[in-house]
Amino acid sequence: MSGAPGRLYGIGVGPGDPELITLKGLRLLRAAPVIAYPAPEQGDSFARSIAASWLEARQREIPIRIPMRPAHPPRAVYDAAASALAVELDRGDDVALLCQGDPFFYGSFVQLWMRLATRFRVEVIPGVCSLVACAAAAATPLVTYDETLMVLPATLEETELARRLAGADAAAIVKLGRHFAKVRRVLHAMGLLDNACYVERASLPKQRAAPFTSINADSVPYFSMALIRRSRVQITDSV
Amino acid sequence: MSGAPGRLYGIGVGPGDPELITLKGLRLLRAAPVIAYPAPEQGDSFARSIAASWLEARQREIPIRIPMRPAHPPRAVYDAAASALAVELDRGDDVALLCQGDPFFYGSFVQLWMRLATRFRVEVIPGVCSLVACAAAAATPLVTYDETLMVLPATLEETELARRLAGADAAAIVKLGRHFAKVRRVLHAMGLLDNACYVERASLPKQRAAPFTSINADSVPYFSMALIRRSRVQITDSV
Repeated sequence: MSGAPGRLYGIGVGPGDPELITLKGLRLLRAAPVIAYPAPEQGDSFARSIAASWLEARQREIPIRIPMRPAHPPRAVYDAAASALAVELDRGDDVALLCQGDPFFYGSFVQLWMRLATRFRVEVIPGVCSLVACAAAAATPLVTYDETLMVLPATLEETELARRLAGADAAAIVKLGRHFAKVRRVLHAMGLLDNACYVERASLPKQRAAPFTSINADSVPYFSMALIRRSRVQITDSV
Repeated sequence: MSGAPGRLYGIGVGPGDPELITLKGLRLLRAAPVIAYPAPEQGDSFARSIAASWLEARQREIPIRIPMRPAHPPRAVYDAAASALAVELDRGDDVALLCQGDPFFYGSFVQLWMRLATRFRVEVIPGVCSLVACAAAAATPLVTYDETLMVLPATLEETELARRLAGADAAAIVKLGRHFAKVRRVLHAMGLLDNACYVERASLPKQRAAPFTSINADSVPYFSMALIRRSRVQITDSV
């Protein structure tokens, strides 16, 4: 034993399909004696569920319980989680922190990274993010050639959404959930409603991709996205 | 033999590190009797090099030779490539088309998809795109909380780059290469130069991540990116 502290791996486990983890992510999560993951206050962790089939009884698990309300949990929640991980790292154990999608594409990993990256070695293993998973599910290109792509959280105000959509060739509106009706109003006002595709639970068995106009606002889960393209990519039959 | 046509898999093989392919991508590329990939007119295919260690002699290979100049190759190049793949699919063989990064995040896959998706079953396997690979390499969050992310190709005109950067909380400028000096001028004029991080060859052995200001324009390869954040994410030592 050298007494060296452990290393923190932020592992992107992908959008939901367990087969969409990378070889590197899988290797590192299998090797880690400690597995951590975000979880709601009660119930199961989505990130853990993605990796569940590879976890072993010998691995210690640390759920990081994050309240869903308010939208920005108090700092104390992350302070406590960082302290819990620091105990493991100080002991010399590596910690694999499972992140749905990619660690640096939204998500709560950044909170732990902010608190731990000065004291410990942190390595981020990129994952398949929801953007590209939703494009695959919708069977539509996300962005091509010299196009620009705007990624917007649906939490923004109506005027703000409209202002930012105005300049984009292609756009993705993430975290739709209960903001669906607002987003629909904005797209309608901008004449973009027929250009929008709706995707929920990309890559999971219950995946759904459909025209945005066909969706009932009452049935929209948090893990959903709108993909918008100003110009359609034509599928031609030229072969 | 049912006589059914083969299926086309557009497989995102990730940004460069062979270990950043997904389990699903690897399974499907191993199972396919035909492997296709974009390649320059002369020389090796980057997408193939990523997957090279898993290819087997029994698999037929179809390089899709794409001229690097002009920036938009003539349609005939893709027509011919689509025809070559259609022959394999009509024979009933599945084709794995290897795509660096993700198939629907820029890249030439869309050209073949446009031409083949009406006649054949096409499935896209999302991959780790360059965006998140570069953020991991730079050890910097791409986008957090309610931030917006603007993705811009460096090929845009100077005024266009400036206009679109103006509204973004975070931005990624892709395809830097020979447009580096222009991008530097724009970032300087907007007071964003010190907020920009430069990344080249993310996830490869020759990966480099450095402050944008430290980079010599003459040494910038095509596979490079600038990541810009309007507000720094502070790493604090609060544990």
